[in-house]
Amino acid sequence: MPTYKAPLRDFDFVLNELIKVQDIIPALPGYEEATQDIFTSYLEAAAQFCESELAPLNRQADEEGCQFDPSTKAVTTPPGFKEAYKQYCELGFPALDCDPAYGGQGMPKSLAFPIMEMQCSSNVAWSMYPGLSHGAYAAIHAHGTAEQKATYLPRLVDGSWTGTMCLTEPHCGTDLGLLKTRAEPNGDGSYSITGTKIFISAGEHDLSDNIIHLVLARLPDAPKDVKGISLFIVPKYHADGSRNPVACGSLEHKMGIKANATAVINLDGAKGYLIGEANKGLSCMFTMMNAARLGCGMQGLGIGEASFQGALAYARERLQMRALTGAKCPDKAADPIIVHPDVRRMLLTQKAYTEAGRALTALLALQLDIEDKHPDAAARQDAADLVALLTPVAKAFMTDNGYEAANMGMQVFGGHGFIREWGMEQLVRDCRISQIYEGTNGIQAIDLLGRKVLLDQGQKLRKFTKQIHQFCQANEGNDKLAEYIAPLSKLMKDVGEITMGIGMASLQNKDEAGAAASDYLRLIGHLSYAWLWARMAEVAHARLGQGDDAFYQAKIATGRFYMAKLFPEVHTLLARIKGGAAPLMALDEEHFAF
Amino acid sequence: MPTYKAPLRDFDFVLNELIKVQDIIPALPGYEEATQDIFTSYLEAAAQFCESELAPLNRQADEEGCQFDPSTKAVTTPPGFKEAYKQYCELGFPALDCDPAYGGQGMPKSLAFPIMEMQCSSNVAWSMYPGLSHGAYAAIHAHGTAEQKATYLPRLVDGSWTGTMCLTEPHCGTDLGLLKTRAEPNGDGSYSITGTKIFISAGEHDLSDNIIHLVLARLPDAPKDVKGISLFIVPKYHADGSRNPVACGSLEHKMGIKANATAVINLDGAKGYLIGEANKGLSCMFTMMNAARLGCGMQGLGIGEASFQGALAYARERLQMRALTGAKCPDKAADPIIVHPDVRRMLLTQKAYTEAGRALTALLALQLDIEDKHPDAAARQDAADLVALLTPVAKAFMTDNGYEAANMGMQVFGGHGFIREWGMEQLVRDCRISQIYEGTNGIQAIDLLGRKVLLDQGQKLRKFTKQIHQFCQANEGNDKLAEYIAPLSKLMKDVGEITMGIGMASLQNKDEAGAAASDYLRLIGHLSYAWLWARMAEVAHARLGQGDDAFYQAKIATGRFYMAKLFPEVHTLLARIKGGAAPLMALDEEHFAF
Repeated sequence: MPTYKAPLRDFDFVLNELIKVQDIIPALPGYEEATQDIFTSYLEAAAQFCESELAPLNRQADEEGCQFDPSTKAVTTPPGFKEAYKQYCELGFPALDCDPAYGGQGMPKSLAFPIMEMQCSSNVAWSMYPGLSHGAYAAIHAHGTAEQKATYLPRLVDGSWTGTMCLTEPHCGTDLGLLKTRAEPNGDGSYSITGTKIFISAGEHDLSDNIIHLVLARLPDAPKDVKGISLFIVPKYHADGSRNPVACGSLEHKMGIKANATAVINLDGAKGYLIGEANKGLSCMFTMMNAARLGCGMQGLGIGEASFQGALAYARERLQMRALTGAKCPDKAADPIIVHPDVRRMLLTQKAYTEAGRALTALLALQLDIEDKHPDAAARQDAADLVALLTPVAKAFMTDNGYEAANMGMQVFGGHGFIREWGMEQLVRDCRISQIYEGTNGIQAIDLLGRKVLLDQGQKLRKFTKQIHQFCQANEGNDKLAEYIAPLSKLMKDVGEITMGIGMASLQNKDEAGAAASDYLRLIGHLSYAWLWARMAEVAHARLGQGDDAFYQAKIATGRFYMAKLFPEVHTLLARIKGGAAPLMALDEEHFAF
Repeated sequence: MPTYKAPLRDFDFVLNELIKVQDIIPALPGYEEATQDIFTSYLEAAAQFCESELAPLNRQADEEGCQFDPSTKAVTTPPGFKEAYKQYCELGFPALDCDPAYGGQGMPKSLAFPIMEMQCSSNVAWSMYPGLSHGAYAAIHAHGTAEQKATYLPRLVDGSWTGTMCLTEPHCGTDLGLLKTRAEPNGDGSYSITGTKIFISAGEHDLSDNIIHLVLARLPDAPKDVKGISLFIVPKYHADGSRNPVACGSLEHKMGIKANATAVINLDGAKGYLIGEANKGLSCMFTMMNAARLGCGMQGLGIGEASFQGALAYARERLQMRALTGAKCPDKAADPIIVHPDVRRMLLTQKAYTEAGRALTALLALQLDIEDKHPDAAARQDAADLVALLTPVAKAFMTDNGYEAANMGMQVFGGHGFIREWGMEQLVRDCRISQIYEGTNGIQAIDLLGRKVLLDQGQKLRKFTKQIHQFCQANEGNDKLAEYIAPLSKLMKDVGEITMGIGMASLQNKDEAGAAASDYLRLIGHLSYAWLWARMAEVAHARLGQGDDAFYQAKIATGRFYMAKLFPEVHTLLARIKGGAAPLMALDEEHFAF
């Protein structure tokens, strides 16, 4: 089983040397206390908790899964989960980035995100229980009445209650316009909600005293489609302690994240309370969805890191064959497999994707904090635009890369990677869902290209590429960054042209955008990562000779690997996009098979 | 659970219209009876067996797995496995391509391979029991004494006995030179064998009366490394019915192929019989390994087909969202998801890889038959060279593509793909091992580039590319194939140059070959597939207007998709190879993490 060690040195690099959150965060109203010392102490405490409490539970929890008792409808989480959650609450983590008005600690996302990454690395199934709660907190905080906030937020903030998001139904996931769950007014301001929800993560469990379900449903006279969906608070227990008829019908049998209870939730006239405006439920839910998408990206990131750590340890220890260039450890029976170029290719792919993903996450967390707290409206808008543009990229690119990284980590182990006891294949299974839920990666791609780029005429994209353009200009003569600047400038030009090309083509035929979307998302992903790797290399070069050269030389080497071996995917992506929609659409549906 | 339907029409296309096995097979001495009618009747019988017997067992068998009884050391296979195996034997399938001298039916690989694909599609874990047996048959047939053949082959051929390959030990898989199992002469011509073998597929089970283990071990005075390894026949039961001390110690807990017993095999002074020459065991074993590698490739192929069938059925039925270009089924609540370009991208990727893989398999099977039976030595050598060159490609490219296809099939299902009952995630888990065993895909890549290409100065490669060159020349002015010929000619030139480049660079530094190998293998994979798609398109164009146009138009459309959307991977591969070894080797081993 891989032993997890939180990458504190790299968090320090990303937060304090690359993104320099300390230049901005403590100057934002409300974040005055979020100093570097505070960051450090929280990160260390979280690392300690994740390494010593969460990570050791992960493997066995996958074997045991959650148990459902059909007679009581109760769900038991795997051994240790409840105790770990209790300790997590006692340490105050559920309150970390919550509003002090409700008992929160008022810390920024810039601190919360690295802590979330650590949780995902050490035990992603466990991390979803508090993760979903935080989504419910955010939705109620943003859209609830004063009374609703007073009722629910303090308990979600102290962790004694948890929350869920109830969207999906058997016949609709992506297409929520089809949902059927009905909400009938009771006449007293409350509603009686009836329907079946599926795939409800953390939907039922034994970690908390109460579970607050946020449920999408239709009012009796609601318009069709997504315009007629409202959001309701449906607590498992009412304030008087009586049980609301919202219950787990069964648990799904899944490929991975087996220790998270994925519940069928039956609402049988359950009492619920409208949150936000009637028929505006979907936009309320999107308060949670955007955060959930970034959280999802962090699952890819965290699992990639965990798999890298496991594979690296194995590659250093496992003796097999001699180096192609001659024995490196002639005193041993064979050389450790890290001498082999192909093993290094896999390790460096994991490392390069993970470190860039960590940088992207920190960048986005800071934008969320600016969007939330900056006194200047223009600065808030700029931050919001960057978050809107890059959220689908972070979700899809980081989970696709995380899955690739997890598979490579397993491959480094050879046959042992396929054996459950080693824990490497679990990371593959646990990561796989991150490419699917919170909107499949195909949906993310359409969100990026359709809504975020084409629909606003490329404004958000230009704001983003302007930063990259300025970086390239500023470093035009910088020999140390030459390996980045030329390909980055070229890609900027290509992205501009191809965006225009897709835009024009899709005016004639919208399938052109649909056909290009997935490749386009990876193109923007590489644009982001190449820019971040260039910036990381810039920082590393500047700090050489100051006492930590090995660390900075490793950054420089990893960035160089990224540009030489991963970035060239852009050539294929551009060629595929130029291939257009016709090769996808030509074949009649009935002639796919004979 | 996906319903499997054998792709008989496509087998017909590949065998009779593309590869035209009937022009060659019945003319080979010994295959006179392998006429098209015989092929058809066998394929139909196998399809019937796979569809109605094997496929329905697959899902539940994954849940139940194999059971090991530590007190008796016995292994019980999942419900239905034993009955299916009995029927398989009664139908004569184990004897299909075996020597008539030992009860075999003397059919060619050209017939056996499509049947193996069907087994892999319908139940890959089950298919490994007869698959391993066939490997043992082949090794004994090739290297056994007359007495050994008389003793073992008739029972392996009728299926009453099964076989295994015992290579791996806990400390060595890839690097068999490290193996420790010892064989002491008993003085009567037999040997006493002691050691522990792991990852023994089909190592213990309840399907057959006896299990014949083929075991690699060292004689007392054997040279070190791979030069001192010998191969032994170690039966579970002796001729007199007494038990040999070769027993299952435990079963592995795996990610997939759970219904195949992956055993730890303990040899505790087990009596064994040398097969082939002393210290030449590895080359004897390679008789089995090469066939096993092609069998492995067929697992990727068969699982890709199964996943495609499942995903296609779902994409036609699942209603979700409207087509980007306007409602296609306005009378339904939403359009079937096959209208969406991104869903089609996934389905067509599955389809294009699977159909090309099927063509490559048929091509290689025919070469094996020619190698085996052709009266002309030069023809045999040409066939052997092509098989040697393309075996690592078939193994690695087809399993990597199969895994990608299986993942895409799961992705088409959205959240339902992650739920075990649907059967799509099982295909992902079952496929994953095919990239690892029988030599990881990284090892295949080194075998291709190092041994098959560079070590023989590119002779085998040139023989292969000459065929492609001739095809391109013959079709230079053919408008219908223009979309293939230009990119194929360009790639031929690029492959020539880059092979030379790697060869020169690796004279200075062998890591250059190691660094290029995995990308190089995919390059040769695309060279093969683009050529095969061009040939398939040629056949399809020629047959238009003869009554089955929908089928041939689908071939043309799928080939076009392949060239537009999958073939462009070559741009990235070429760029990565040009990046060389330095980006992989620069980072010191101790500085991969801090």
